[in-house]
Amino acid sequence: MSGSHFGKNFTITTWGESHGPAIGVVIDGCPAGMALSEEDIQRDLDRRRPGHSPYTSKRGEPDAAVILSGVFDGVTTGTPLSIRINNVDRRSVDYSDVDGVYRPGHADYTYDRKYGIRDYRGGGRSSGRETACRVAGGAVARRFLTELGVSVQAYTVAVGKTSVDRSRFDQSQAMLNPFCMPDRRAYECAAAETEAAIQDGDSLGGVIECVISGARPGIGEPVFDKLSALLARAICSINAVKGFEMGAGFNAARMKGAENNDEMYYENGVVKKWTNNAGGIYGGIADGSDIVFRAAFKPTPSISVSQNTVGADGENRTLRVKGRHDPLIVPRAVVVVEAMAALVMADLTLQGCLSNISNIKKILGVAK
Amino acid sequence: MSGSHFGKNFTITTWGESHGPAIGVVIDGCPAGMALSEEDIQRDLDRRRPGHSPYTSKRGEPDAAVILSGVFDGVTTGTPLSIRINNVDRRSVDYSDVDGVYRPGHADYTYDRKYGIRDYRGGGRSSGRETACRVAGGAVARRFLTELGVSVQAYTVAVGKTSVDRSRFDQSQAMLNPFCMPDRRAYECAAAETEAAIQDGDSLGGVIECVISGARPGIGEPVFDKLSALLARAICSINAVKGFEMGAGFNAARMKGAENNDEMYYENGVVKKWTNNAGGIYGGIADGSDIVFRAAFKPTPSISVSQNTVGADGENRTLRVKGRHDPLIVPRAVVVVEAMAALVMADLTLQGCLSNISNIKKILGVAK
Amino acid sequence: MSGSHFGKNFTITTWGESHGPAIGVVIDGCPAGMALSEEDIQRDLDRRRPGHSPYTSKRGEPDAAVILSGVFDGVTTGTPLSIRINNVDRRSVDYSDVDGVYRPGHADYTYDRKYGIRDYRGGGRSSGRETACRVAGGAVARRFLTELGVSVQAYTVAVGKTSVDRSRFDQSQAMLNPFCMPDRRAYECAAAETEAAIQDGDSLGGVIECVISGARPGIGEPVFDKLSALLARAICSINAVKGFEMGAGFNAARMKGAENNDEMYYENGVVKKWTNNAGGIYGGIADGSDIVFRAAFKPTPSISVSQNTVGADGENRTLRVKGRHDPLIVPRAVVVVEAMAALVMADLTLQGCLSNISNIKKILGVAK
Amino acid sequence: MSGSHFGKNFTITTWGESHGPAIGVVIDGCPAGMALSEEDIQRDLDRRRPGHSPYTSKRGEPDAAVILSGVFDGVTTGTPLSIRINNVDRRSVDYSDVDGVYRPGHADYTYDRKYGIRDYRGGGRSSGRETACRVAGGAVARRFLTELGVSVQAYTVAVGKTSVDRSRFDQSQAMLNPFCMPDRRAYECAAAETEAAIQDGDSLGGVIECVISGARPGIGEPVFDKLSALLARAICSINAVKGFEMGAGFNAARMKGAENNDEMYYENGVVKKWTNNAGGIYGGIADGSDIVFRAAFKPTPSISVSQNTVGADGENRTLRVKGRHDPLIVPRAVVVVEAMAALVMADLTLQGCLSNISNIKKILGVAK
Repeated sequence: MSGSHFGKNFTITTWGESHGPAIGVVIDGCPAGMALSEEDIQRDLDRRRPGHSPYTSKRGEPDAAVILSGVFDGVTTGTPLSIRINNVDRRSVDYSDVDGVYRPGHADYTYDRKYGIRDYRGGGRSSGRETACRVAGGAVARRFLTELGVSVQAYTVAVGKTSVDRSRFDQSQAMLNPFCMPDRRAYECAAAETEAAIQDGDSLGGVIECVISGARPGIGEPVFDKLSALLARAICSINAVKGFEMGAGFNAARMKGAENNDEMYYENGVVKKWTNNAGGIYGGIADGSDIVFRAAFKPTPSISVSQNTVGADGENRTLRVKGRHDPLIVPRAVVVVEAMAALVMADLTLQGCLSNISNIKKILGVAK
Repeated sequence: MSGSHFGKNFTITTWGESHGPAIGVVIDGCPAGMALSEEDIQRDLDRRRPGHSPYTSKRGEPDAAVILSGVFDGVTTGTPLSIRINNVDRRSVDYSDVDGVYRPGHADYTYDRKYGIRDYRGGGRSSGRETACRVAGGAVARRFLTELGVSVQAYTVAVGKTSVDRSRFDQSQAMLNPFCMPDRRAYECAAAETEAAIQDGDSLGGVIECVISGARPGIGEPVFDKLSALLARAICSINAVKGFEMGAGFNAARMKGAENNDEMYYENGVVKKWTNNAGGIYGGIADGSDIVFRAAFKPTPSISVSQNTVGADGENRTLRVKGRHDPLIVPRAVVVVEAMAALVMADLTLQGCLSNISNIKKILGVAK
Repeated sequence: MSGSHFGKNFTITTWGESHGPAIGVVIDGCPAGMALSEEDIQRDLDRRRPGHSPYTSKRGEPDAAVILSGVFDGVTTGTPLSIRINNVDRRSVDYSDVDGVYRPGHADYTYDRKYGIRDYRGGGRSSGRETACRVAGGAVARRFLTELGVSVQAYTVAVGKTSVDRSRFDQSQAMLNPFCMPDRRAYECAAAETEAAIQDGDSLGGVIECVISGARPGIGEPVFDKLSALLARAICSINAVKGFEMGAGFNAARMKGAENNDEMYYENGVVKKWTNNAGGIYGGIADGSDIVFRAAFKPTPSISVSQNTVGADGENRTLRVKGRHDPLIVPRAVVVVEAMAALVMADLTLQGCLSNISNIKKILGVAK
Repeated sequence: MSGSHFGKNFTITTWGESHGPAIGVVIDGCPAGMALSEEDIQRDLDRRRPGHSPYTSKRGEPDAAVILSGVFDGVTTGTPLSIRINNVDRRSVDYSDVDGVYRPGHADYTYDRKYGIRDYRGGGRSSGRETACRVAGGAVARRFLTELGVSVQAYTVAVGKTSVDRSRFDQSQAMLNPFCMPDRRAYECAAAETEAAIQDGDSLGGVIECVISGARPGIGEPVFDKLSALLARAICSINAVKGFEMGAGFNAARMKGAENNDEMYYENGVVKKWTNNAGGIYGGIADGSDIVFRAAFKPTPSISVSQNTVGADGENRTLRVKGRHDPLIVPRAVVVVEAMAALVMADLTLQGCLSNISNIKKILGVAK
């Protein structure tokens, strides 16, 4: 594969360019017998959609998901699910001026060096638009996880220099503001910071946190396929992500062992912990508590500030990027982070079913 | 696979438990025609070996690598390389007291929940000893990369609360102190902090930085197999790693676009940049500049401080971990980080050769 | 993956049911820089299309291929190629009577046992219609191989009890009759045999032979990924194939070593052979001569003869299959065999480029 | 991977050359909790061992299997099983004369063209000795299948021009003669044919049939990972195999549909069939009846008859192969065929557990 295939047992393959006729995803390995509708997918796609807040791109894409295969009478059949999303609002003319110029912070130069050819319209395959397919695939994974009592929820904990205050953390707030921040005051501050950046033609980054709840102990494979490792890959494969951390993350490096270790105790026969510095993962395997990780997003590279750059013709250039860009991509990325986390969890949940011969016998109805 | 296989074209499969008779690695996909000796591997293994500093475990393992296949007359033949490392200094009796008790911060509980059975001697498969096999595989990858002019070098930038001062950064220093810190004063401070932790029976974590130089532009596949994504997975699969970041990393989230974007210019016809906030990767593909990333390691969970924990028997317990443990694992992990980075680079370098049909024709001798 | 993904570096993922809105294929790993048009794909699809001979299904599908991504200005970009084929002539009502009855020789019973649910319209995913996607993918692989001077050509060597007479073998004839038989008299005899079967409401099988010419020596990986092994898998994954053989095949088992071994000699410095009993493959690796294999197809299971079978309701039944079926599937399968062979060759050709470090250095421009 | 890795969830990786210090296999993905001893593996290895019949190589290898990891207190732990087999009776001097000469029917020429270097001692990696590792891996797969009530049994149905008479078929006979033929008279005839070949310094081939019993309906994935397709690949990856067929195989191509279709009926509520022309597989998925296939083996290419061939030096040569070779490899290959079949079945059995969401809920204890 050349990078557009993801997963081992629960898999997705995505395709499509920003300004081609459509983009899409094929999901193979979703178990049969699960109720699934286009609404299940549309719900998540709508959360990623551009054009519905002053802080996002004005590109007006309905992002309507169409299921072309794999569902019969509203139920998955075990065969591949093909989902197509048409590109409706393409204005390729906006990009004609960047044909021969490499935008700073973008993949223009590296694609040209790798392939010798590049669809320069809207970033082509390297466009953030590609993440819509991840969201569609992730929505199917979420449907599967919901059947098993597992939930995946992300929110914004920092925008630019503004961070959420943990003492004011209120999950319900995240649904009430366009930045998905679980702290109203932090949101207001972040909104002001973003407005200022927009005035300058500049952009901001931020940090997203994600919590996976309800997973059974034992999810994750040892050594190279640790749950932490596969989440890291999944999240760092999202455009603009520059960092990933689990639980206490980079702070853990500054703690002592006695402080960082999560001490355990029994409560009504169930193992509990006083802290969750590990983010719910030990030796790469989930222990049944909340799985917690964070992703750092760089500021959107497309800005209207004038920048030095180079042309494909060997000349130095200056460039102000035109087009319809998000000054702050983070809020739209929240559901993308959830999607990638859900895909990893679905895949490793299937894999985890195979770890013990008593599981296999249970399925096959063999007496112990 | 259940997690012990890594890579697509340049692959490794590792096996072995901490207190079994041996551990080992099979490398499949290393191209034929490359000079390779046991010394090439031993050199890296010696850097990871325990027992040669006051800050590491006293377990006296020679970690002698034996190549059992894949080399003929000192040259690789293209067939799998099997490398075995015997376990010499096993004292399994040290672990008999943790048989039924779950050590905090370890994988004891999660392995038991996943598999229903666990080799409790020295952590079994979840032991840091497993990383010796990664180092052996990584040494072969490094040999391959060296042939192509690519180098991989890591060093310690933080131990506990002590960080390297970038203004005193001196790469040569990293070879001269047992912590591999490129700043002598930081090392001295870190050594004092470590001594204090040892006195308390406690442990420290830290941060390792790694630089890959000499890679051609175009390495890395788009979307899910981005160089950044595969490095993140590789690094986060190392025991004790809790965070990963590329270039400016988490700091990038606090910058504005105009500050974070790496502006480009031509110098003697070559593309250069004023900054490297991206860490050498755009859209998941290397641009030919230095690739830079960091990994956060938590403090060693095995400490002699008394901790609350639970037994497999349903009872609450307190535990002081005995045995021969490293109060600071970071220095020994430096070569493990290099190994994983080298394996990713070797794999994606092979993959990258297939990206353009003109490459294929060059190899096959087909006229354009 | 659950079976709809094929290949390692040059890969396809297919999706779609016989009576859904569309079917399709995503090709990932096709190198950039290759001219590709919808006509390249349509040409092969037209050879598989139903409805254009008295011996095939009357289903009138135009099978028009639409490329949705991966091509820019008529050239591949290295990103995934998504190809869609709409299902136009669906008459699902034809299948309503087989909803609860398991057709003999079909996958109805096994799908129900595996998934507990089944799209019974036209066989759903188990329909031969799925092979159109293989042909589309194979056409792209063929385009790639043509660039490298490799051709893949199949033809029919037996229909029912009629076999081609090797002494009358005439490749050009295969283009001139609807059975693709390279022997005119054999075709006439086979046509008569088929007419008789049609009169009885019965069906016939046959044997297809395929020759791959122009491949360089060295294609194929040792041990499990032998060229012969991957061809066997590819061909035996086609519906209705019950046997596969290379070169002398089952006849080789009856020969002595001195008779079966292909003796070699030099002619103008080039290695030649007196025979090709091995079918061009030794130790799983092509030697540069023609690669030759054959596939046995069972007769179409859908027949209008009354047969004993069972219902999902636990009752014994008799069934005459209605609908629009091919009394002889073999001629339409010729291009499917070519497609699968081309896909294997494209994938192993890419892989083969990585076998020797001198190849890698050639691509990367590293001096020896 | 470069061909030495096999399987998706139940996987093996093999390594080693004929005349290196050892060969071995790493099995990853075998579920935890299964009793396993070295005797389980030795039993199968002994059936493949050379040197114990007048018809096999005189190389005296004990082929003693040593388990180095993955088993604790006699039970699998879910971590990789590493099995090593030492090469004891190496006489590399026997091969010094074939260093620069390409043996007809062998992989000498193709390996040289692929890799540019070759371990010529005993065929190196292309030696039949490599199959010992498959047998060791297959023995673990068999252990797993036995737990689930599945058996895999092969026997010889043809040697040279002598075939078993189905009317005299007696499975118990296969254990009583060195050719594993289930027909005593056929064995006697085959033995005489083999003696005659030995007198001439020549060799024979043959056909092996394999029956897999007790598999549940539903094993096998649609489209590319059909049980038939993966068996075909597995079997055709064995050295010397030139053909593979399922059920009626090549004969099915000569039947009419009404004759070839397996009609079904209920007997005490269980689905039965009058025939098994499909070999137990429909649409690539097992129906619960016996799975039956056959493999054609070419005669051993190493013969003492003088043959024309070429040297690496560009000169024509004649060659009589010395060394210790099997005039008839088929009997030793019986257990290799079983091993590969067992590996495919183990892998697809695991995969099959994931096909339906009700299976997953059963394992995870989620209420429907």
